[in-house]
Amino acid sequence: MQWKTSISRADEKETLVRGYDLMELVENLTFSQAIFLVLKGELPTNEQARMMDAILVAPIEHGVSVPSAYSSRVSISTGQPLNAAIAAGILSIGEYHGGAIEQAARLYQENSGKGGKQIIEEYAKAGKRVPGYGHKIYKESDPRAQTLFKIAREVKIFGNYCKLALDIEKEFKKTGKPLPLNIDGAIAALISEMGFDWRLGKAFFIIPRVVSMTAHAHEEVTKEKPFRRFEESEIVYEGPAKRELPKEYRKK
Amino acid sequence: MQWKTSISRADEKETLVRGYDLMELVENLTFSQAIFLVLKGELPTNEQARMMDAILVAPIEHGVSVPSAYSSRVSISTGQPLNAAIAAGILSIGEYHGGAIEQAARLYQENSGKGGKQIIEEYAKAGKRVPGYGHKIYKESDPRAQTLFKIAREVKIFGNYCKLALDIEKEFKKTGKPLPLNIDGAIAALISEMGFDWRLGKAFFIIPRVVSMTAHAHEEVTKEKPFRRFEESEIVYEGPAKRELPKEYRKK
Amino acid sequence: MQWKTSISRADEKETLVRGYDLMELVENLTFSQAIFLVLKGELPTNEQARMMDAILVAPIEHGVSVPSAYSSRVSISTGQPLNAAIAAGILSIGEYHGGAIEQAARLYQENSGKGGKQIIEEYAKAGKRVPGYGHKIYKESDPRAQTLFKIAREVKIFGNYCKLALDIEKEFKKTGKPLPLNIDGAIAALISEMGFDWRLGKAFFIIPRVVSMTAHAHEEVTKEKPFRRFEESEIVYEGPAKRELPKEYRKK
Amino acid sequence: MQWKTSISRADEKETLVRGYDLMELVENLTFSQAIFLVLKGELPTNEQARMMDAILVAPIEHGVSVPSAYSSRVSISTGQPLNAAIAAGILSIGEYHGGAIEQAARLYQENSGKGGKQIIEEYAKAGKRVPGYGHKIYKESDPRAQTLFKIAREVKIFGNYCKLALDIEKEFKKTGKPLPLNIDGAIAALISEMGFDWRLGKAFFIIPRVVSMTAHAHEEVTKEKPFRRFEESEIVYEGPAKRELPKEYRKK
Repeated sequence: MQWKTSISRADEKETLVRGYDLMELVENLTFSQAIFLVLKGELPTNEQARMMDAILVAPIEHGVSVPSAYSSRVSISTGQPLNAAIAAGILSIGEYHGGAIEQAARLYQENSGKGGKQIIEEYAKAGKRVPGYGHKIYKESDPRAQTLFKIAREVKIFGNYCKLALDIEKEFKKTGKPLPLNIDGAIAALISEMGFDWRLGKAFFIIPRVVSMTAHAHEEVTKEKPFRRFEESEIVYEGPAKRELPKEYRKK
Repeated sequence: MQWKTSISRADEKETLVRGYDLMELVENLTFSQAIFLVLKGELPTNEQARMMDAILVAPIEHGVSVPSAYSSRVSISTGQPLNAAIAAGILSIGEYHGGAIEQAARLYQENSGKGGKQIIEEYAKAGKRVPGYGHKIYKESDPRAQTLFKIAREVKIFGNYCKLALDIEKEFKKTGKPLPLNIDGAIAALISEMGFDWRLGKAFFIIPRVVSMTAHAHEEVTKEKPFRRFEESEIVYEGPAKRELPKEYRKK
Repeated sequence: MQWKTSISRADEKETLVRGYDLMELVENLTFSQAIFLVLKGELPTNEQARMMDAILVAPIEHGVSVPSAYSSRVSISTGQPLNAAIAAGILSIGEYHGGAIEQAARLYQENSGKGGKQIIEEYAKAGKRVPGYGHKIYKESDPRAQTLFKIAREVKIFGNYCKLALDIEKEFKKTGKPLPLNIDGAIAALISEMGFDWRLGKAFFIIPRVVSMTAHAHEEVTKEKPFRRFEESEIVYEGPAKRELPKEYRKK
Repeated sequence: MQWKTSISRADEKETLVRGYDLMELVENLTFSQAIFLVLKGELPTNEQARMMDAILVAPIEHGVSVPSAYSSRVSISTGQPLNAAIAAGILSIGEYHGGAIEQAARLYQENSGKGGKQIIEEYAKAGKRVPGYGHKIYKESDPRAQTLFKIAREVKIFGNYCKLALDIEKEFKKTGKPLPLNIDGAIAALISEMGFDWRLGKAFFIIPRVVSMTAHAHEEVTKEKPFRRFEESEIVYEGPAKRELPKEYRKK
């Protein structure tokens, strides 16, 4: 099997990452700068590096109540190693949890010529939800999206993708049933501004969530008894009543 | 089911991470500072933040030849979403690949009073390899370990755990069959210096490797045809020759 | 959190599975009969049980060259436990590998009134491939699909879903570019005949593949040296040549 | 990379599994017979096939309260595909949940000359629990273990490994603090009788549990609203009170 790659070249003498000596990167870059380099192929400007830090800090921890946090606790409670627990957590990042970044980034990148009104109409016609809008708790405005956009303006990352993202929000407001731009949508617009392909979208949620999963799995394994089992009182059985196995299925 | 946690508290008004308002963290911290806070419970000093950046950049990309890199490519080549591909990659981080950080950190933290000679003897007696030493390619000295320790000295993180790590290396050299401190061992010593529990060890490899897995999965899905299959020429069949199913197993 | 379920009820006295005492099932059912019961809610007839056996044996092992087989070997070669290796293998079952069963079963179940010609035209118009047809190796006819349909006729499971499946194959043949019904398509038609929801489709591939993954992971861990690494000769670097880190990124 | 295998050989003409034509297996074997063949390399006798069915039916479904059942529901509730949900469930099979089969089978296979008394003493001395004994609910006797051993006697699989397993149980009873042989221990003894390597132990739990995970994931996705989130009332925050980010960490 053959592997073609532009990401790195490693031999006995040195490891080059996107052309740079890995040891030079270790000595000089922040983790965010290095993430930008590995994913994009080029070094970030100072402004992009600042934006990357904000984007990666925003999803870092949102409480134990969400699947990606407690799934890693459940896994490690059964005696699994830390990496298996983190993998279990990542398998709870789907369309309804972090997955909207990818779809929203795709929407912005593939519809850059359109306005919010047109996009909302097209999605309504196709019977689909516009990804990146609405939140269970933040009904009017998602403070995390607002903070990220505030920083984007400060560092002059704010551009046409962000404008489109806000235009959609504005149009939703007019409908009387406002759906605020949420953190997924904001991250989607910002990575589009920095030139990241939408197919990378989920990674900007997954990378920081791994930090959260690590902290939760560690807390579980050091503070709790093994084996997270639900209580009978939390279970409602709705299946058939007890029944006999018919005679023709019996061995004797 | 009840969840006790000291990591965060989230409600409609705000999300507190280790007591700090998440929005303040987004505006002010680098990603490395935030990782330190989430995993340790307290903010890092400037020196610790610099050390964290170096530790997290070091494993960020080591080429496509290692399981954690190519496994994510294989998974996404079958049509899986990015998060499943990353989970598959993380399931290739084991005892022989990144897993030694955990065991080496445990060794340093549980044997701080001993010298290198005693530790090598104890492991030899138990028939176990000392974790964190030796490398397939770097026979004499692992440049990544050296660079990390150089930075540790600059920022005055270098302490007794690092000394013990080097003392073991020195004792191995005396045996005539040198096993250099590798990157796993160096990271293990440094996170011990900063007060991280050894059970968190693997995370300092997993978090940066997720960046590598993302880049490889993305390159695969955008540049290669689907479905990575090995060629017949790469397979050696060593099983039984073709044989008949015995009559008593046949339906007719 | 509350869990409603019709699948089973377990307490100190007994475990009822779909209403039947688990101990009676252990004493009397074959594994295939029990799988049918758990997934469908009712016991299979003798004919359905025979069909289940054939469906579950067909995907049980197809060689080491496919992602779901070798991925489990790679994972266990890094020192992971068996369950992590199997999880890694399952994360290589996607749209291009086993995933077509789900989509083909959906196609049959949602288009039962239509003919093959109409379906091919609709998919062509939508720019989509008809799932369950074509194979890399079997260009004219997939022997596994044929064997399954032969058994289906013997046990009188063969009905309208199978007829539709073959009608699509016949229409493809007329186009001069034949795409034979493959094993995914055949399984999809047969589970539809037995009343399984298309959302269960992938399971009829995953359950037997876990057996394959187990055998491969076990062979790897008992016969091979740890850590599957690709050779330099298998890697083609296409990235930038070595370059200097610009001065403004250097700490000194 | 080179792959040596004795499991199968597949080319354009045919697929041989352990030497037998896969199509012959599809036409003639039950799923349990085929599982035995793939994992062991040889066909089972009728008695072994009956025992395999019983072993594989026993773990097939134990209620929604255990991690391997509800983890797959949580994963699919976030919008993941079925295979990711099953992988998440498998990552909750650890030392405390199904994992004991492997360790108990190892114990029986590596200590076949010893008696129960000696084994209990050796484990006590090493400060380790004897794997395969004790259960949260079944304090005196595990009915699943008993049923499996009853069948083993009927089909004459019952031999020295089973006797050792029961001898350990008998010795525990003498201590006044009885720890009954549980289902994990019983399966471990029985697969040892049939000549399976202990490293395969977990598979006899994982293969049937995949059926359970499939049923639960399917029930979740067809009956419940997306995104399983815990309620605030189920969370107890024990971390620091709200605190200010110190001035030196602030950008302004």
